[in-house]
Amino acid sequence: MAYPDRLREQVDDYLSTLGFTSREATRGLEDAMRYSLLAGGKRIRPVLCLATASSVGSSPERLLPTAAALELIHTYSLIHDDLPAMDDDDLRRGMPTSHVKYGENVAILAGDGLFAEAVRLVCEEQEGDPETIVTAVAELMAAAGVEGMVGGQYLDVAGSAESGSDEDRLLEIHSLKTGRLIAASVGVVMTLGRVEESAKMAYRKYSTELGVLFQIIDDILDVTGSDDALGKPSGSDERHGKLTYVSVHGLSGARELAAEYHRRALDALGEAEPRTPELEDITNFIYTRES
Amino acid sequence: MAYPDRLREQVDDYLSTLGFTSREATRGLEDAMRYSLLAGGKRIRPVLCLATASSVGSSPERLLPTAAALELIHTYSLIHDDLPAMDDDDLRRGMPTSHVKYGENVAILAGDGLFAEAVRLVCEEQEGDPETIVTAVAELMAAAGVEGMVGGQYLDVAGSAESGSDEDRLLEIHSLKTGRLIAASVGVVMTLGRVEESAKMAYRKYSTELGVLFQIIDDILDVTGSDDALGKPSGSDERHGKLTYVSVHGLSGARELAAEYHRRALDALGEAEPRTPELEDITNFIYTRES
Repeated sequence: MAYPDRLREQVDDYLSTLGFTSREATRGLEDAMRYSLLAGGKRIRPVLCLATASSVGSSPERLLPTAAALELIHTYSLIHDDLPAMDDDDLRRGMPTSHVKYGENVAILAGDGLFAEAVRLVCEEQEGDPETIVTAVAELMAAAGVEGMVGGQYLDVAGSAESGSDEDRLLEIHSLKTGRLIAASVGVVMTLGRVEESAKMAYRKYSTELGVLFQIIDDILDVTGSDDALGKPSGSDERHGKLTYVSVHGLSGARELAAEYHRRALDALGEAEPRTPELEDITNFIYTRES
Repeated sequence: MAYPDRLREQVDDYLSTLGFTSREATRGLEDAMRYSLLAGGKRIRPVLCLATASSVGSSPERLLPTAAALELIHTYSLIHDDLPAMDDDDLRRGMPTSHVKYGENVAILAGDGLFAEAVRLVCEEQEGDPETIVTAVAELMAAAGVEGMVGGQYLDVAGSAESGSDEDRLLEIHSLKTGRLIAASVGVVMTLGRVEESAKMAYRKYSTELGVLFQIIDDILDVTGSDDALGKPSGSDERHGKLTYVSVHGLSGARELAAEYHRRALDALGEAEPRTPELEDITNFIYTRES
């Protein structure tokens, strides 16, 4: 599937220009932050942000600081998720994880630093009406906070004694852990561009379905992907006893669900006006990706 | 010394009203966040913020969301600093540290959550011109990020191979680790209140001197304080082989330095107009505190 590589290159170029300190003494911390930030990947959140900008008639270039901030926040979450006290993963994208390379203390601080610098980037570099920037930062923090990413990670690693069916819990964990930040990648564009409420609705539905699709595929790939393609040993969810779409629905059930959410995402996108073809490309890519 | 307890009570009351989730499933994470946040303490950063507001003619009540955010950020940093991979402290304010009580994974996430919710609080609850709020959030993030608190902690735990004299390194570590956030407690009030540049200068100098004074006293108390008063075993800096004002200057040398910085802070404050007596009270309290 065609992935909007042009947008990804813009993101990669912008990320590579980011420095976080002018002090010699804190260069080592910056190195650790850049090591994880520049480790590659599809940059799905920032690319989704830029493609949405393009869809609603904003300039993607203008959104680069906010798009980059999404990737900084995502990277911070990966560094903390990989820690020994969390998922205890040694490899990510075929490279040693942050704590393996730099030590646990530096890894914790590299994550903390990326989070602070993400917010700073939006506040200092994002052009636009300050009122929309304040709202966009609040949205990012809601997506990253207790009722978003951090809360989802809490449920994933520590909240396993919750009540409710496995299916409900699964949806709650993932809608918080990955869904909210993916939805925010679309949502902040609406906020910064002051898009009308009526147009926002379809995008909001689209980004929610896309977040679920993304996670189903992630769970499937953890089982079916090769170590090489994943850049880490496959089967890690099962070893960690995690609740996943595959553990709850079985592999073929998860594949059926993925097909359903793929269709739902495309349907919702079909309602969004205006839109560029890039969002459809991203949706198809997420459905068919192999790593 | 008289400490502005009225302001502290305002801060404590406000902090105790803060909830971070309406979901049953993430209540456990909120509990961990509130456990550390409501463990008491002098609330020096938010009290300093409110006293500064009062000094420059803003209403302290109006600044409560930003004052509280300073305490959330400070609390997040304490939780992460106490982790086994960092200072590995079991007690804080006479109570088990977050990771001892809730486990390391929840402690990391409680810190992460407090950070996100701090920023969200300023964006969602702080009244004022949005342009000043964007600038204030940027200042907070600069104080908390790589050239602030996180960078200082990096130097403290990992950057011990730096060059330069011990005195220079000590000042750099602490100006980043504690000084920047204390200075920001004053600085954000200037920003939110659009205080004129000429008036800002004296406050900026004051808050910088105060940050150094605070840290010298902290280092002295780690040696001279009783376990009961400190709420943790004294002598922990020495056990960790940390560079402190006492290790570099000796106890009497550190006491002389504290007297000097106390005088410098009061001198700088003397230049600040307008001002209320509360800032002098806080300065004297920081100099004479016993825990």
